[in-house]
Amino acid sequence: MKLQLLLTGNELMSGDTIDSNSAAVAAALTPLGIGIERKVTLGDSLQQLVEELDNMASQCQVLLVNGGLGPTQDDLTAQALAALTDSPLEEHPAALEHLRHWCAGRSLRLNSANLKQALLPACAQIIPNPVGSAVGIRVSHKGCEIFCTPGVPSELRAMLRESIIPELEQRVDPAQTCRIERLHTYGLGESTLQQWIQDELPDWPAGVELGFRAGAPTLEVKLKAPLALRDEQQQARQQLERLIGDYIVAEADGTLARSLIALLTRQKRTLALAESCTGGLIASLLTAEAGASGVFEAGYVTYSNRIKERLLSVDAGDLARHGAVSETVARQMASGALAASGADYVIAVTGIAGPDGGSPEKPVGTVWLAWGGPEELRTACLYFPYGRRLFQTMTAGAGLDLLRRFAAGIETPPRYIRDRQPPASTDA
Amino acid sequence: MKLQLLLTGNELMSGDTIDSNSAAVAAALTPLGIGIERKVTLGDSLQQLVEELDNMASQCQVLLVNGGLGPTQDDLTAQALAALTDSPLEEHPAALEHLRHWCAGRSLRLNSANLKQALLPACAQIIPNPVGSAVGIRVSHKGCEIFCTPGVPSELRAMLRESIIPELEQRVDPAQTCRIERLHTYGLGESTLQQWIQDELPDWPAGVELGFRAGAPTLEVKLKAPLALRDEQQQARQQLERLIGDYIVAEADGTLARSLIALLTRQKRTLALAESCTGGLIASLLTAEAGASGVFEAGYVTYSNRIKERLLSVDAGDLARHGAVSETVARQMASGALAASGADYVIAVTGIAGPDGGSPEKPVGTVWLAWGGPEELRTACLYFPYGRRLFQTMTAGAGLDLLRRFAAGIETPPRYIRDRQPPASTDA
Repeated sequence: MKLQLLLTGNELMSGDTIDSNSAAVAAALTPLGIGIERKVTLGDSLQQLVEELDNMASQCQVLLVNGGLGPTQDDLTAQALAALTDSPLEEHPAALEHLRHWCAGRSLRLNSANLKQALLPACAQIIPNPVGSAVGIRVSHKGCEIFCTPGVPSELRAMLRESIIPELEQRVDPAQTCRIERLHTYGLGESTLQQWIQDELPDWPAGVELGFRAGAPTLEVKLKAPLALRDEQQQARQQLERLIGDYIVAEADGTLARSLIALLTRQKRTLALAESCTGGLIASLLTAEAGASGVFEAGYVTYSNRIKERLLSVDAGDLARHGAVSETVARQMASGALAASGADYVIAVTGIAGPDGGSPEKPVGTVWLAWGGPEELRTACLYFPYGRRLFQTMTAGAGLDLLRRFAAGIETPPRYIRDRQPPASTDA
Repeated sequence: MKLQLLLTGNELMSGDTIDSNSAAVAAALTPLGIGIERKVTLGDSLQQLVEELDNMASQCQVLLVNGGLGPTQDDLTAQALAALTDSPLEEHPAALEHLRHWCAGRSLRLNSANLKQALLPACAQIIPNPVGSAVGIRVSHKGCEIFCTPGVPSELRAMLRESIIPELEQRVDPAQTCRIERLHTYGLGESTLQQWIQDELPDWPAGVELGFRAGAPTLEVKLKAPLALRDEQQQARQQLERLIGDYIVAEADGTLARSLIALLTRQKRTLALAESCTGGLIASLLTAEAGASGVFEAGYVTYSNRIKERLLSVDAGDLARHGAVSETVARQMASGALAASGADYVIAVTGIAGPDGGSPEKPVGTVWLAWGGPEELRTACLYFPYGRRLFQTMTAGAGLDLLRRFAAGIETPPRYIRDRQPPASTDA
């Protein structure tokens, strides 16, 4: 099936908005085995829109249009479709009813701007919008089915899920339909992982496509296969899990933080944090997830030495002797947070995020972590010389992952502890 | 000048990469008064590329192409240009020299994959790449100047800055060249602000264009004007600053957190945080900025009631009587953090991020904030019923802004304290 995508909106041309809708469309189409053949982006110009719609409709069987369905004057999609199909704009009772209902639910008065959203080409069918005010529009032109959706990401996603994808599903050969399994890993680079799979899994099932998406701090591994190869896909997944199982921190839409919360919830254990260089990022990643309150007890963001002493009982002499970025201080921060909070587990980090504060012995990017519980604390030194933000993100990931491994009873130390050492020997 | 943009790469079609390069191109062109008229995105298909290049070149005077210059087989831009201009691929000595130099600087051996990057259409000119291995390519076709750049964002930006923008600058009328002033505001909605400017600033200078970019938690206000109207632009800025000065939290590339750090650094004052519902986000926003260590003393993330009592000496009776989300508890969290840390200023927040935990009296989205110093604490209740993440982001913004106003001695309470009240009366 030939499918193209037309995006419209001045904000997409001016750079004020980064287009993430295309990715949502692509992700929704992938399981059907449909790719986007071509994508055109235009500003809010009626003439350009009509010409482009006409041109694109003659090149494909399905044209998805995104944007231009809002209530303001520069929302021109309905008008462009009317001109394209030579069909007058008229008030659609179902669209009006949807608007009335939507406004009533929000104690809003239906104004003339909103009423514009019920004026659609006479020949158009309506695509229901379960979450927003603008209904979608569907017309045929030159044998091409045109589906128009609003630019608001949540509304686009809902329409794809509930109307457009089910409709397209009926038009594709089921043998073509794919399923993607997603696994999120922490601590493995893409090229390392690719090489590893090549060397260790020579009998990788044919037809199961391996893909990667580098994120921070995790790397997503994708296993794509046609529905008919479901068994082979599960086989590939099992092989992969045997090879790198302890690096897999989440699957599907999960996150590392959510996995750790789920693990501690099952164990009925609680967690405290003592953060210096990550400055609250680990706490923030955990508490971004609903359910964090069940396991997350207390977070200390101790930026200065004075506060490390005062809040976490770090020894002033050790701070002077070893420096704040040292194994001793990381360990004392961890013990101090456990004692002060009464939690079962702890993650403590102290490092040099930069741009200042580095030295030849402890360059910017060096971090000491301590993690564990009252009976056993472990420590490691890592090195992420990537600039302040990425350093913080990777360090937060390491802290969450190291505690996840500890709590899950994974004894083999991860490769990144060996691979990510600072160039100079670091003080312990 | 008619300018179009062609982006190429399978990763853009599959949704694995979100295109941020278009925004970089648009931002670089805006000061020249040049807009992107139309944008097409394609996968790595030679035939499609050649057809699209030919078609687009006939529609504009300048065509920017991004992507497809890398060393791998699916990088097809040079090949497509050769086919387009009917000019054979040949080794360009300057490109080869650039590659040799680039590899030598990284102790890399020049391999055959890299050598491919020196094979360019015979008719092409080279666009230097100050930061990466691939040189850019420039050709003419059908009277259109085609500039090809690599997909790596830093390389694209360097080429725009050092070669392409200076070249285009010579082709535009200087009267058309623009300058943009950017002001970031917290606590004003776009429509409110637009209405306010319309009502209060009737003598807005002609030729100064007002624009907005909604972010979270801030709203960016843009003043765009041709260089010739520099005085009018400054006038407009001054008018705007008189009208909404106390809502302006940063300018240009600044952030609210950075402004607060700068203010406290000038005052030589320190800050402590007591966060419940924001869970470390305020600390994380502050410590994402270099320089935070000079003012940020201590952050407490106190999620449970037990920890509020234990770390911040919140009274158990008051917790039971008023609930954790109450003025009394917010105030005690603030006092507790000040006492425990010895800091000069404090921000404390306690609210209901959701999805659970709401009640008819205190619906999800309700938050109590306390801020100030040992001599004076202020409090406010706000309501952000926007889902967990956005609730946390807006609350963090409110905390930072309210302390900024307090530390700067701005006495007028911001409108959002009045406008953003929960629907039910809240317990104090």
